[in-house]
Amino acid sequence: MNPRVPEIAPSLIRQLNAKKRPTSIDLGLGEPTLLPRMEYFERAMERVRTSGVKYTPNAGDPELRELIARHYAYPGMEKPESVCITIGSQEAMYVTLKTLLDPSRDELLVVEPAFPSYVKMAALEGIDVRVVSMLPDDDFEFDAERIIAAIGERTRVIVICSPCNPTARVISRDAAQALVEALSRRPGDPIWLIHDEIYREQLFVDDAADLARLYPHTIVANSLSKSNALTGLRLGWILGPGAFVGQAIKVHAWAVSCADTFAQYIALEVFRDPGNLQEHAPWYREHRALAREALEESSLPFVDPEGAFYVCVRLPNGTRSLDAAHDLIGRFDVVAIPGIAFGESLEGWLRLSFVASAERMRDGVARIAEYCAKLPVSC
Amino acid sequence: MNPRVPEIAPSLIRQLNAKKRPTSIDLGLGEPTLLPRMEYFERAMERVRTSGVKYTPNAGDPELRELIARHYAYPGMEKPESVCITIGSQEAMYVTLKTLLDPSRDELLVVEPAFPSYVKMAALEGIDVRVVSMLPDDDFEFDAERIIAAIGERTRVIVICSPCNPTARVISRDAAQALVEALSRRPGDPIWLIHDEIYREQLFVDDAADLARLYPHTIVANSLSKSNALTGLRLGWILGPGAFVGQAIKVHAWAVSCADTFAQYIALEVFRDPGNLQEHAPWYREHRALAREALEESSLPFVDPEGAFYVCVRLPNGTRSLDAAHDLIGRFDVVAIPGIAFGESLEGWLRLSFVASAERMRDGVARIAEYCAKLPVSC
Repeated sequence: MNPRVPEIAPSLIRQLNAKKRPTSIDLGLGEPTLLPRMEYFERAMERVRTSGVKYTPNAGDPELRELIARHYAYPGMEKPESVCITIGSQEAMYVTLKTLLDPSRDELLVVEPAFPSYVKMAALEGIDVRVVSMLPDDDFEFDAERIIAAIGERTRVIVICSPCNPTARVISRDAAQALVEALSRRPGDPIWLIHDEIYREQLFVDDAADLARLYPHTIVANSLSKSNALTGLRLGWILGPGAFVGQAIKVHAWAVSCADTFAQYIALEVFRDPGNLQEHAPWYREHRALAREALEESSLPFVDPEGAFYVCVRLPNGTRSLDAAHDLIGRFDVVAIPGIAFGESLEGWLRLSFVASAERMRDGVARIAEYCAKLPVSC
Repeated sequence: MNPRVPEIAPSLIRQLNAKKRPTSIDLGLGEPTLLPRMEYFERAMERVRTSGVKYTPNAGDPELRELIARHYAYPGMEKPESVCITIGSQEAMYVTLKTLLDPSRDELLVVEPAFPSYVKMAALEGIDVRVVSMLPDDDFEFDAERIIAAIGERTRVIVICSPCNPTARVISRDAAQALVEALSRRPGDPIWLIHDEIYREQLFVDDAADLARLYPHTIVANSLSKSNALTGLRLGWILGPGAFVGQAIKVHAWAVSCADTFAQYIALEVFRDPGNLQEHAPWYREHRALAREALEESSLPFVDPEGAFYVCVRLPNGTRSLDAAHDLIGRFDVVAIPGIAFGESLEGWLRLSFVASAERMRDGVARIAEYCAKLPVSC
């Protein structure tokens, strides 16, 4: 057996979710509670009736690739050749890491706190990982100087999720500019940036950088999962310079052949009017406001969310987040994700999502506040 | 960049298909021309209306896993834990190879002629490959003695596609028995068999072995692509001992997260009455008969198809299959796949598929016969 596989620990998040009961208040959810628009599905059905669901080319439906490239219009990525349709943003990230990095030589730099998949994928591929932590004292703001200082001799790729899961922070234009200037000044082979922009359509501040507009060695991973409540559809894409995407398509082709044709029919409907990507944005703004209200009432310390649909809440000093998460589900029937799942830098915190109803959010936050109040050290 | 990626040559089959014109008679197709049953889609739509398309667990919908395990009821694989739902049989194969083989040590044995993906996947993973060729003089019959003799010191996995793409041969029970007896007698760690049974429902002979019924160290890869004209749906599965599948699920989870929920809704409809898997079987029997008739009339030498929807046709001595395929599309407007795409052992042959209409098959075969007759060496 491949010795790297047994070494990979099962997902902490999935383990906690498995303890959920029907009565539980779930503030751990990483997907929208909204239902998708049926209109997309109805139109996709018309295409099934006439054309079935045949294979598309490996890289995806040519029209869909063109619509995506044109919509984002990132410099040097405006043509269909810059797009590969993938199995959600997960496979977009997997294929990108696998294509960009030589496991015998290169190193990946992950900006933490971060969704655990980057580190797990690298472990599966035998790629060395270095992490750089954004700091709780800065409310986990993206700090270009810290990222630049963390670059090592073998660093070839830096992965940044903005808006960020779990911190809900967004990399500002100034921070991004400082980062890409430092990268551009470096001699030798370029260091690549991967911008995981899966929460792009849940953005609550004006100052948000598109890394691909600032730096030509950027690869973007995204999907319809969060923007259109289509998590289970597994429809994502890689956007990048054509020469890179041409290589990535080969990895994608031999791993999965092509993305689901039915899912691509739906994506075609969404991208024919890219305004559709924002169809749920007002709902997220409203839920963000409700979450902030509930947290302010509770007087739990939290990081103000700039994007995504999460908010990080600080536990009383010295509380281990995994213990807290187990206590909360066991004794208070609330699911919250322990910060440690996102790296050492989020230890002592919980990640809550604000996709539940207003009532359940308020109730859940109140229970967490009650739990914290009962701990030996005050919140 | 990962140096293994640029080394992988683009697909010969895809390159040839790109030369196809609207007028072309396409005997190169690797997918059904039938349309899928709309009833499955209509029922899946009902579920979207009430439940959307949320993530399923990484390994797939629990009910679907159970239905699949129960339907095949392979010994030691009757429980849901033996099933992982994948992105078609392509990802099933990719995940299986990646989980089973240690690239630093192990070797894969591929029984050729074979679909090129096994060798390409191994190249991508840095896994050494050894091939063993079935012989044209035996009409490419699966020869257990040759396979056993080809096993090397480092061979840990043998992959067999039966019914076979491209030869349309099926491994007989006697041949399978001889193979697994030899494997069982070997001391040390077991050698695993992977049975690619994607053409399981296109079977025209009685004597076909299910390797998983004969040998406990068998992994099965399959999908709905060919049985139900659902190629583009990308819905496949791995079936294997629970301990193996538990590890494979981790690879699958970090590569793609989970399979498309909509596709899983459709698979649930198919497997609620597993007779559905045979819904197109009469059509394939009819088309096989038509293909044989056309070939017998043409007096082109061919290997009698026992399964799948292909037939291999022998070119006149000394004809290179890639030259023939290019000549046929260029001068005769017929698409046929050159044998060399499936390994050296099928050089000098073409693979034709019998999914086109009777008329087009007859016309295409007649054009190939005309082409062969004009070559310097007679057919």
